[in-house]
Amino acid sequence: MRTIVWNEKKQCVEIIDQNALPVDYITISLFSYNDVIRAIQHMTVRGAPAIGVTGAYGMALAALRSSEPQLSDIKAELGEIAQKIGGARPTAVNLWNMLDRTLDLIKGFEGHVDDLKAELLKFAHHLAEEDVALNMQLSRHGAELIEDGDHIVHHCNTGALATVDYGTALGVIRMAHEQGKKIHVYVDETRPRLQGSRLTAWELKQYGIPYDIITDSSSGHLMQMGLVNKVFFGADRVAMNGDVANKIGSYMLALAAVDNNVPVYSVFPMSTVDAKIRNGKEIEIEQRDDREVLDIALNGDIVVPDAATALNYAFDVTPNRLLTGLVTEHGVLYPPFYEKLDKIIREGI
Amino acid sequence: MRTIVWNEKKQCVEIIDQNALPVDYITISLFSYNDVIRAIQHMTVRGAPAIGVTGAYGMALAALRSSEPQLSDIKAELGEIAQKIGGARPTAVNLWNMLDRTLDLIKGFEGHVDDLKAELLKFAHHLAEEDVALNMQLSRHGAELIEDGDHIVHHCNTGALATVDYGTALGVIRMAHEQGKKIHVYVDETRPRLQGSRLTAWELKQYGIPYDIITDSSSGHLMQMGLVNKVFFGADRVAMNGDVANKIGSYMLALAAVDNNVPVYSVFPMSTVDAKIRNGKEIEIEQRDDREVLDIALNGDIVVPDAATALNYAFDVTPNRLLTGLVTEHGVLYPPFYEKLDKIIREGI
Repeated sequence: MRTIVWNEKKQCVEIIDQNALPVDYITISLFSYNDVIRAIQHMTVRGAPAIGVTGAYGMALAALRSSEPQLSDIKAELGEIAQKIGGARPTAVNLWNMLDRTLDLIKGFEGHVDDLKAELLKFAHHLAEEDVALNMQLSRHGAELIEDGDHIVHHCNTGALATVDYGTALGVIRMAHEQGKKIHVYVDETRPRLQGSRLTAWELKQYGIPYDIITDSSSGHLMQMGLVNKVFFGADRVAMNGDVANKIGSYMLALAAVDNNVPVYSVFPMSTVDAKIRNGKEIEIEQRDDREVLDIALNGDIVVPDAATALNYAFDVTPNRLLTGLVTEHGVLYPPFYEKLDKIIREGI
Repeated sequence: MRTIVWNEKKQCVEIIDQNALPVDYITISLFSYNDVIRAIQHMTVRGAPAIGVTGAYGMALAALRSSEPQLSDIKAELGEIAQKIGGARPTAVNLWNMLDRTLDLIKGFEGHVDDLKAELLKFAHHLAEEDVALNMQLSRHGAELIEDGDHIVHHCNTGALATVDYGTALGVIRMAHEQGKKIHVYVDETRPRLQGSRLTAWELKQYGIPYDIITDSSSGHLMQMGLVNKVFFGADRVAMNGDVANKIGSYMLALAAVDNNVPVYSVFPMSTVDAKIRNGKEIEIEQRDDREVLDIALNGDIVVPDAATALNYAFDVTPNRLLTGLVTEHGVLYPPFYEKLDKIIREGI
């Protein structure tokens, strides 16, 4: 399963429509950077690493469709388009990291416009391959933390669907399963968009890993009963001090874990670290449409009163003090995180 | 609005169907104790105090419909029926408290069978009136905790619908509002049965109290942003040490509040205290059908994969160390709770 694939014949990016899963498995073709922006905004593609690579393909598509004949003009045009793509979702930093790396390539490029177009497509392919390789690598590091018989709480979706392939936190779980460890996953349903019930449950079924879906407010009780050994979730943006912005609910999950001496790990590639942000408090938290909270039905009936209003923050920040470790492609980092993240970044990722 | 009403003409109990709200406002007639058991099990009536009074009416209905001519026989029959009603839902202790008080009346009764029947109906009326009076009383105590301008997180439904009338935690909020204090409520939607989005939002609209619905995992983030002043929730069973069993999610909500120095209050009449239980760990936590978690739809589509499984605990226990105070008809109790609860119980409620 690959979430993002280049179709050479049609010259477009094909992505799995994550809003249609698990009812329908549909791929959607993105022909322009505007298609890419819409897909990111509507969460047709979601998951910080998947968004990042889709954004890079958005730049390649923009270049391919550009009619600017002059190198300086297409460079200026692509610079503006990067701003638009980067604004599609504010919290996940991988998008800007991939765009910045693409802009560096553009800036340094000398030669013919057609060669730039070819280079940008090649670079998007490279970033996609790199994402899969990094996920395999960090999953191998993380899998060492999992013991045979572990019961693991997992929040949101961080699997193949959230990345180009394999996954981050769910990649760790998958790797441990492939190593023959017996694991049971408690899948946080992850309101409001239910990425847990919809996507993670669907992925776990493909991998043959046993699970139970739980409501997001259940993990504390399961931990009090001694039913949970570890917590794994992903990250959308990590501050240099190790504060982790991730799907709303991660913070309360981490609080429950710490209160019950259950270790908590956030799993991400280093492209999720924002070197410009020292503290999680500086991270902009995206608010989404309140219909995501209100358009909920039980047994087929919409149940929220007419004219009800909701407040819908998509992410929260888990302070570093609640995190046992950060799982990256460079291994598992333990607190204090600042110097370790800084060293990795200074030595080059 | 009264949740439980005796219909003298039809000789039955009429309750508001809480599963139909807020789409339809329907009353359902209960003619027998079996109707009462079904209504409690299917949560047509829910909320610890409401269940307790409905159970007492179940005993009155059982007596009225009984054909036993002998006092000793009807006493034995009612003793067995109390066991059945009491088993309808295990966690809320109010049900057993009301049944025990009814059984005490039965045990001590001497006279004609028809007079016992009349006495039991009168006693159920008395318990209903008592519930409303206690709720008004504890709401007045609790309202003193609320300041003008407070933003309050409320979990599940604890309003008129959860009681005979007025409510417990929501009664406190309603009282403060009626006192002219400006309040904003963040309504936890309260998965899986959405008592917050469905019932609490509906009640707040009737009372004219402004609110926003939030997902259960959002309150931590709102508190980190400094948007929350207080947390109020009810209780289904309270241990003598002040541990509170309440709707699943209360524990994680309290953890988030404590981590952000936000005061947390559990609000209940003393009939919710289980004098036989010293520690919350002894409280039996009800597990419900996993369809409550799985039958969830977004935009009208069921979204959980076929054959998915869920784990659905209905309650959790908030340890006393996380609670700022307990609001009862005897006032607000502060830690340590044991001696204060014990004194009230020994001096008689």
